[in-house]
Amino acid sequence: MAAVKSVRQFANSVRFICGLNVLSRRYASTDGSFHPRRSLLYIPGNDERKIKKASSLNADIVVLDCEDGVALNRKKEAREVISNVLNTTSFGSSEVAVRINSVDAEKLALEDMNTFMQSLTIPTTLLVPKVEHARHLEWINDKIFPVAKTLKPEVKLKLIIFVESALGLLNLREILEAGVDETNLFNLEAVVFGSDDFFANIGATRTHDAKELMFARQSIVIHCKAFGLQAIDMVHIDFKDLDRLKEESIEGARMGFTGKQVIHPNQIDIVNEAFSPSPEKIEWARELVAAFEQQSSEGIGAITFRGQMIDMPLVKQAFNVLTMAKATKSK
Amino acid sequence: MAAVKSVRQFANSVRFICGLNVLSRRYASTDGSFHPRRSLLYIPGNDERKIKKASSLNADIVVLDCEDGVALNRKKEAREVISNVLNTTSFGSSEVAVRINSVDAEKLALEDMNTFMQSLTIPTTLLVPKVEHARHLEWINDKIFPVAKTLKPEVKLKLIIFVESALGLLNLREILEAGVDETNLFNLEAVVFGSDDFFANIGATRTHDAKELMFARQSIVIHCKAFGLQAIDMVHIDFKDLDRLKEESIEGARMGFTGKQVIHPNQIDIVNEAFSPSPEKIEWARELVAAFEQQSSEGIGAITFRGQMIDMPLVKQAFNVLTMAKATKSK
Amino acid sequence: MAAVKSVRQFANSVRFICGLNVLSRRYASTDGSFHPRRSLLYIPGNDERKIKKASSLNADIVVLDCEDGVALNRKKEAREVISNVLNTTSFGSSEVAVRINSVDAEKLALEDMNTFMQSLTIPTTLLVPKVEHARHLEWINDKIFPVAKTLKPEVKLKLIIFVESALGLLNLREILEAGVDETNLFNLEAVVFGSDDFFANIGATRTHDAKELMFARQSIVIHCKAFGLQAIDMVHIDFKDLDRLKEESIEGARMGFTGKQVIHPNQIDIVNEAFSPSPEKIEWARELVAAFEQQSSEGIGAITFRGQMIDMPLVKQAFNVLTMAKATKSK
Repeated sequence: MAAVKSVRQFANSVRFICGLNVLSRRYASTDGSFHPRRSLLYIPGNDERKIKKASSLNADIVVLDCEDGVALNRKKEAREVISNVLNTTSFGSSEVAVRINSVDAEKLALEDMNTFMQSLTIPTTLLVPKVEHARHLEWINDKIFPVAKTLKPEVKLKLIIFVESALGLLNLREILEAGVDETNLFNLEAVVFGSDDFFANIGATRTHDAKELMFARQSIVIHCKAFGLQAIDMVHIDFKDLDRLKEESIEGARMGFTGKQVIHPNQIDIVNEAFSPSPEKIEWARELVAAFEQQSSEGIGAITFRGQMIDMPLVKQAFNVLTMAKATKSK
Repeated sequence: MAAVKSVRQFANSVRFICGLNVLSRRYASTDGSFHPRRSLLYIPGNDERKIKKASSLNADIVVLDCEDGVALNRKKEAREVISNVLNTTSFGSSEVAVRINSVDAEKLALEDMNTFMQSLTIPTTLLVPKVEHARHLEWINDKIFPVAKTLKPEVKLKLIIFVESALGLLNLREILEAGVDETNLFNLEAVVFGSDDFFANIGATRTHDAKELMFARQSIVIHCKAFGLQAIDMVHIDFKDLDRLKEESIEGARMGFTGKQVIHPNQIDIVNEAFSPSPEKIEWARELVAAFEQQSSEGIGAITFRGQMIDMPLVKQAFNVLTMAKATKSK
Repeated sequence: MAAVKSVRQFANSVRFICGLNVLSRRYASTDGSFHPRRSLLYIPGNDERKIKKASSLNADIVVLDCEDGVALNRKKEAREVISNVLNTTSFGSSEVAVRINSVDAEKLALEDMNTFMQSLTIPTTLLVPKVEHARHLEWINDKIFPVAKTLKPEVKLKLIIFVESALGLLNLREILEAGVDETNLFNLEAVVFGSDDFFANIGATRTHDAKELMFARQSIVIHCKAFGLQAIDMVHIDFKDLDRLKEESIEGARMGFTGKQVIHPNQIDIVNEAFSPSPEKIEWARELVAAFEQQSSEGIGAITFRGQMIDMPLVKQAFNVLTMAKATKSK
């Protein structure tokens, strides 16, 4: 993203010339810390009633949608409602995000970006659907540029992108390489697997255990982890079948996903729980770490724990569990 | 394929100079429209009796084989039989294709191409096995060149290639990128997964549910769909076990494959059915599309259908079902 | 690896100038032939008692470990024990190898290489864990260089590398391309899947059937086979559950893996058996090959065997079975 690099340099020059005291707008949140995103809830951006309700729910991230959840003739209304909501409504401990239309839907996406980048309260987090090429992220970067100079340079807009086509999956590596470039005006933090669009794109049909998605889901997890990003699993569309939702959530967590999309309030708690370490797991992690620290200081090579030989990988896993437990404890 | 580009330009010049009325040969079919390839049936190219029988069967595509199905000392005979058959035999609504020997078996493949490109009736569709490198497709292009100038430039030979080794799978992206280059003298339309050769190549053993092939099969589907190609699934070698054939066909269709290889007439109907949308699915698609069109015109964001929220992806899937139903209806 | 190429050329010059009779050190084994590596057993490098025991076991390859199996304050002791063992201990028909620390643990890996490359008996086979980049192999090459000139140029050090992170898996193709470069001072022969580190790295949790590893395991098999390398499957950590070990070993073998890591003597025989062709399979292969040779000489296209049509791929598989049977027969 060579072009972006010079844009960024120019942005920095503008900031320098204008001074930092010109800041007139603010992000909805300037919290730069780690966001757990176990549950990602969609709300149609033009549905004020549902948005109000969502503000009191327990989803880790609430997505005010301008894309698939909003009919074409309601897009303008959705933008207005969302701009207003961002400026006036508190969502408690939930992160609030906006999903714009896909970059390929150029006019819609442009109107989205023009609206939200000029709002009094700019969304902290943007979701960009149907990313298929690195150039889609360059487009986003260009649209952030005009507002970047008015914001603190150390606070970047958080970006979450969607893989929802065969092409997006094949190009994922180059998309992520472009996405994590430090010169970007955004911080790429997560990838969402848009499974329903993906099904339509590859002409597949959902089965009960979704084995036809194994390649796509595991490929996404591996790409995300190689680039240090969160991986957010497919939506469970049948929101009445909470048993299957639970199974699918646990399966996703075991696969390495860090969260899951939800489309109904009843799905939130089940998903949050599945993507949190269990009390038993936390206890196991604490004890294993303690055993490791004791035996390691005594110079014993192969650590023994509960009758099994334990190697460094498992010790690391235990440390990871404790970190995640701490991050979601306050919720 | 830069070299190919100039070859093509030269071919176009030759066509211009010679005029289009020098056309002396013809493709077996000049139909440029979409071919469903649900069932792909192999017949040894030297077995006239089986070929005659196949001409009255219901396979979407009949492959007259010069490769693995024909012993080394019968290759010449197979070429002669096939040339004659192409010129004299009607296969009804079935597409007729020829599988040549692999490009790496250079002498055999060369004799195949020399024979078929000089036949009075040139095969409409070529199958190229064991493709492992983009250069294999350049080789094919070079061999088509001498005949290309004698044919209508708007009618290209249809190409179907096989992935049947670890290397072919790893190189699939670059193979397809080369294959869909518009300057090629062929139209790449489908990829076949040669599972038995693939098993031998990676030293794997077939299990009942073929889970050891999940990566390969899903990788092929995703590559094909990213490049707009048909994906044709593995053969079910035990042609007496029709129950398992049915299961495996349905599984393949759900995974996104558009067809399946068959080696016995009894397999055709089962496979055709599995890769056709069911009447219920077509009905579902019609109703969903109707609901979408009605509610969309009323400006309702989240479409509701049979008690579930329906998003754009599912609407697209419904449209796809109707397209496929239309394409296979006349068969 | 352009830099490596000149290093190699320089090494060859040095050999030429010094003459080959300066050879003062030797590899533990100069056997250049094919090593089956069905079972790969780890022994902590500082545990002399276990090492002595391992020398009489039936593992195809015994790994004297300097990495995860040895506490930080015992690394030096492990190096000394291993150097002594290599010089004094026979392991019968087992190959002996040394696992150094990861290249990213630069000081430890450097001390490992300094020690072992200057031992009187240099390890025949090195295992390098946590390979994530092609440059890790260049580092190894540089460390071999000083000793390469003192050894017969036709005998190269055998290298086995580990994939145990998302990044290592994503970069596997470029790692292997660099690894099989003929100018290297080592022969890359196998890739080991370090599943426990991999779990920790991607934040996944092991389930009974390990389906969350399907992508990684099959991706590794395919990469290995495309580059002509052995693929060594994950360890079964619960060394008391021999039934599950057997299932998992058979599954790995069917997937195309050529061997499996073991951490306990009781695991060896089960693993060796799973990765050897069964007597029935060998018998099947012999009969199929015989049928093929007879019918082929009679010019019959589609070979028939035990009531099924048999194609070339299956014939090849049968030949492979016979080759493997021969290689492990003497053990």
